[in-house]
Amino acid sequence: MRFEQATAVTSAGSGAYDVELREEYAIAGTKPNGGYMLACIARAVVAAAGQEGSPHVHPIAAGAQYLTSPNLGPARIEVDVQRVGRTATQVAARLSQDGSTAVTAQFTLATLPAGSRPYWGGVPPVELPPIEDCQGLDPGQRRNDTWLVFDPATSFTMTPDGPVSSGGGELRAWFQTGDGTVDPVMLLFVADAMPPATFGVVSTGWVPTLDITAYVRAVPAPGPLRVRFRAQMIQDGFADEVLEAWDAEGRLVLQSTQAVALRHPVSGPA
Amino acid sequence: MRFEQATAVTSAGSGAYDVELREEYAIAGTKPNGGYMLACIARAVVAAAGQEGSPHVHPIAAGAQYLTSPNLGPARIEVDVQRVGRTATQVAARLSQDGSTAVTAQFTLATLPAGSRPYWGGVPPVELPPIEDCQGLDPGQRRNDTWLVFDPATSFTMTPDGPVSSGGGELRAWFQTGDGTVDPVMLLFVADAMPPATFGVVSTGWVPTLDITAYVRAVPAPGPLRVRFRAQMIQDGFADEVLEAWDAEGRLVLQSTQAVALRHPVSGPA
Repeated sequence: MRFEQATAVTSAGSGAYDVELREEYAIAGTKPNGGYMLACIARAVVAAAGQEGSPHVHPIAAGAQYLTSPNLGPARIEVDVQRVGRTATQVAARLSQDGSTAVTAQFTLATLPAGSRPYWGGVPPVELPPIEDCQGLDPGQRRNDTWLVFDPATSFTMTPDGPVSSGGGELRAWFQTGDGTVDPVMLLFVADAMPPATFGVVSTGWVPTLDITAYVRAVPAPGPLRVRFRAQMIQDGFADEVLEAWDAEGRLVLQSTQAVALRHPVSGPA
Repeated sequence: MRFEQATAVTSAGSGAYDVELREEYAIAGTKPNGGYMLACIARAVVAAAGQEGSPHVHPIAAGAQYLTSPNLGPARIEVDVQRVGRTATQVAARLSQDGSTAVTAQFTLATLPAGSRPYWGGVPPVELPPIEDCQGLDPGQRRNDTWLVFDPATSFTMTPDGPVSSGGGELRAWFQTGDGTVDPVMLLFVADAMPPATFGVVSTGWVPTLDITAYVRAVPAPGPLRVRFRAQMIQDGFADEVLEAWDAEGRLVLQSTQAVALRHPVSGPA
């Protein structure tokens, strides 16, 4: 299913939008991916901001807190456009299901020019083998027009004993789309599209995200993205992870951090 | 003025708290510092969560969006405790003045054990000259029991032509308190205590923070903190900055990112 279709929202009036959370963008087919929900919310946020006269069409900062994991199917997004400024628009939103809030989110919108270059700085792009030498998680079941292929040095597999990664806390991958384009809203999906980077260090149950922040730094040039996702520190049952993505021209287009809980608490002396 | 006193909140009932935004924690004496406001909000959030039966007393993730810059003086903090879970408590809050929202914020609370060590990972602490070889911004006017002294290689000065830093996008400093202790709430102040790291690259007017996220990774051991604040990329009139802090035992205790706007837009080919 195309990403645009899977994240489509329908106005229900008064800043409310309806969305259908799709199986195709679910973790193990049962629960919607966190970045996917953030992208759905972003679609409603951009629409609502436009209704309020905002000239800003790209999320440049987005954050979310995951309170509960909703089921697939219909959900409601409520948007509160808080401030339409000259350089940025600030918006709060939440996604709920059956009247219960599942995700709270915050957005800063601006309009990023296509094709601009950094004035200063940047981060050197992660080195990756050619795409044809990388491997998908589940090559036989690609249902979407977005997919990841992993550097074999940091590959990830599900085994009967649980998830195993060879990356030692780092995963590296190419992110691709069917038509080769990625827009700023899809970058919010990319921000949480990787398996937990902690799996290369400790095999646990699923690793729920408590808080994620994504900064969209540029509109990607067409072509595959390079993605690096690394756990920074694991302590007291929590970890922080950093994700960066670069476009086909080697520009940093996304920087994201998230705080996660490890379901089987991990702590103690190093 | 002591930080605890400057961030004290008083319950006004129904999840509302009153706070007095203090001149001592103001930028150039006129506007309250963003991290200072985040710490004030955190005090109200921890109090309100306790009222709702949360056993979690430390902010481990905090985010804020700055809509307007409030004046010094009385402000109102409203807290919505969204979920009290087993491992974490999630809370939304906002700070308003004269009925207008100035800051929206989100918190994840947990209880961090004192003295724990990383299970895995970490970031090597930034190297700094001895404290006695570092320099404050304004040594004659230290009004608080918290202060920064900067590595002379990354010093920051205000000149008639505007702010100037020698750090090339990075500032390094020691953060100290009168009694040598820093708690997780004070770390939220540290997250935004440095001058803009962009001043080492481009001299602009003040650099407003649009969005900040801070992850508190551990309760600091007593003693001064090492702090590194670096601009990562400047493009299209926006920049992202990364701040890290380490305690006296060399443990990473704080990781923070922020998205800022440069008042005089900076863009164009590199």
